[in-house]
Amino acid sequence: MTELSRRRLLTTAGATGAGGLALGTTGGALAHAATTRDRGPGLSTVGSTSVPFHGTHQPGITTPIQAHGHLAAFDLVPGAGRRQAAGLLRRWSTLAADLMAGGTAETDTGVARDAGPASLTVTFGFGRGFFDATDLAHARPAALDPLPQFSSDHLDPERSDGDLWVQIGADDGLVAFQALRVLQRAAIESGAARVRWQMSGFSRSPGATARPMTTRNLMGQVDGTNNPQPSDPDFDRRIFVPAGGEPGWMAHGSYAVVRRIRMLLDDWEAQSRAEQERVIGRRKSDGAPLTGEEETSPVDLDAVDEAGDPVIPANAHIRVTSPDTNGGAAMLRRSFSFHDGFRADGAPDAGLLFVCWQADPLNGFVPVQRKLDRGDALSAYIRHEASALFAVPGGAAEGEYVGQALLEG
Amino acid sequence: MTELSRRRLLTTAGATGAGGLALGTTGGALAHAATTRDRGPGLSTVGSTSVPFHGTHQPGITTPIQAHGHLAAFDLVPGAGRRQAAGLLRRWSTLAADLMAGGTAETDTGVARDAGPASLTVTFGFGRGFFDATDLAHARPAALDPLPQFSSDHLDPERSDGDLWVQIGADDGLVAFQALRVLQRAAIESGAARVRWQMSGFSRSPGATARPMTTRNLMGQVDGTNNPQPSDPDFDRRIFVPAGGEPGWMAHGSYAVVRRIRMLLDDWEAQSRAEQERVIGRRKSDGAPLTGEEETSPVDLDAVDEAGDPVIPANAHIRVTSPDTNGGAAMLRRSFSFHDGFRADGAPDAGLLFVCWQADPLNGFVPVQRKLDRGDALSAYIRHEASALFAVPGGAAEGEYVGQALLEG
Repeated sequence: MTELSRRRLLTTAGATGAGGLALGTTGGALAHAATTRDRGPGLSTVGSTSVPFHGTHQPGITTPIQAHGHLAAFDLVPGAGRRQAAGLLRRWSTLAADLMAGGTAETDTGVARDAGPASLTVTFGFGRGFFDATDLAHARPAALDPLPQFSSDHLDPERSDGDLWVQIGADDGLVAFQALRVLQRAAIESGAARVRWQMSGFSRSPGATARPMTTRNLMGQVDGTNNPQPSDPDFDRRIFVPAGGEPGWMAHGSYAVVRRIRMLLDDWEAQSRAEQERVIGRRKSDGAPLTGEEETSPVDLDAVDEAGDPVIPANAHIRVTSPDTNGGAAMLRRSFSFHDGFRADGAPDAGLLFVCWQADPLNGFVPVQRKLDRGDALSAYIRHEASALFAVPGGAAEGEYVGQALLEG
Repeated sequence: MTELSRRRLLTTAGATGAGGLALGTTGGALAHAATTRDRGPGLSTVGSTSVPFHGTHQPGITTPIQAHGHLAAFDLVPGAGRRQAAGLLRRWSTLAADLMAGGTAETDTGVARDAGPASLTVTFGFGRGFFDATDLAHARPAALDPLPQFSSDHLDPERSDGDLWVQIGADDGLVAFQALRVLQRAAIESGAARVRWQMSGFSRSPGATARPMTTRNLMGQVDGTNNPQPSDPDFDRRIFVPAGGEPGWMAHGSYAVVRRIRMLLDDWEAQSRAEQERVIGRRKSDGAPLTGEEETSPVDLDAVDEAGDPVIPANAHIRVTSPDTNGGAAMLRRSFSFHDGFRADGAPDAGLLFVCWQADPLNGFVPVQRKLDRGDALSAYIRHEASALFAVPGGAAEGEYVGQALLEG
């Protein structure tokens, strides 16, 4: 199945280990030779870091966002049923575990050879259509009911939904491409599924920024500041389905909402910095709320200026999305930026491959998006162009595959 | 024009300096805190490395290939002439110098704020059409005559040619995007030019591989092994137009051939490893020629096996492209991989954004491609889908702009 390659040996020697799983925890600083411009010293922690595939949760949820991402939805081919789907998930899980450990798949043509695993993660999910095609409608979670239609939606059905979902992230573009190609080939060879849509994105490269905790989106805004942290006491409850929850096969799983959000950058960039800051409610320079001194300052929604007007406007994005104004609704946002060239009008076809995670979309994405839909100043500058919702089961134990409790339940 | 940002201060403190300009030289290894998965230590050499804009040659030719690349061609708008074009080149040069130094342009919306320059390079070139539109036909180099039509070409005119060319590379995706957007906005605001086509690509991330000197393409082949090296005695003569050459404004410049080469990965991956190695003439595992022990072993085109057949087949890619069989024709290849999703038949729309550099295309790309067109085993697995040829002037001195000797000559 795999070869114990030079690559893997290097990986084992250089890996920083499972610290990669915990978002926001403090890993030990490791002195090593820098990758200078001659690329002489070779593999650094950028390449050698591996994330475990097996565990309580699937990888790619609390894993720090990587520099390259691929989102792909697959549809089951007509006639493929539960048995074929189970075979594909078993195969996908084996391949994902091997690739994430720095191994090479037998169908690999060598694209990622010489490279370390580069924090590769592969995450699998099930869409609403999967359950009918596999006679598993009785096991379909209520949480997969279609999302409400929002008035600002401009959704392309061909780039929305899908029976199966694969999320790939890695800090190297060739490693990420190879993983996608290997998994796509496995789908073709299984005869069970084919690509419905696929989108590629990117985020900061490790080491490229002096502000490592949060990134910026293509509007230039600091993004992700108020994300729930794994150290929060209610993090697990908000993000993951509990053991003993419904349905049982979703224990330790999560629900992912995926939205292709195009940014109307011509319109956005025509606004003054002050206007952009009023739209968001945060300072452009450092992400601090307009009522605070630094990015992590608490947002004071009650603050008023000398004229008695709220400092953070009534329709500012951070007010509308604040958990305080949404009955505590929270989701873990983990999005890649995308840029697919330019449109005929000269504007970039670019924006956010928004991905958010929650234990229940009805207590996460849906109430927040409803409020955004009614009165978010940001909505004039974005277009939701594709949408999907997936049930992402808990992680597979060694020797098991993702979704086994569903497919063999 | 720019602000002396925190970003620039960090850049200055952490920069490894101009060593980045020399391909293949040995930089000093620098002990620093690793970028662990919590991203705690922040800016590393990945982010802090800057490449000078001003110099004898433009950047982005001998600069090591970066993790992210954008190629964009612009056409002059009807009515725009030499004066407007000069204004745009002056503006572009100022912006490029600022961005490459880690500064922020006034039109910047903050996408790259907090990040170092991340080895950003911006390179400008002129296409054949530029000279008619600007009444500079008398200054057009003969080397810009249209490339011959090759029998295997499947060229899309809408993604070929162009009056102006911008090549952007950076080791961070947001830095690369911002540079493209800032330059595109400058073109729009100048009223002189608009995007004709734009392609995005990627290569290895620094530190992702234990084999830093060469990368692999999406066929999994080690690529770039036999590239001319700046330390070669005839490097400058082969790659750059000499001072005193014709036309005078191209002194220290070079010619770039750009080809979008789609790889037929379904067909390629269906071949055995042995067959793939016969097609290329090199071992898949380490890039060694079939006649040698390691990647850098000389290629022995005369070697025969026990049956008397050549070890490197008559139509093997490395035989057909060997300088020994092309009268010494040589070019510096510096290509990004691309992946633009999947085609309707399920195959990846992926391959190579081939860019090669030479002092004279008639003594570089053209003779080699002619030979490839007649009998290259690799040609069954690739499609040339777009093509362009640009005259890339020498680098601008401080206070000057790229192309000034042409536009004010």
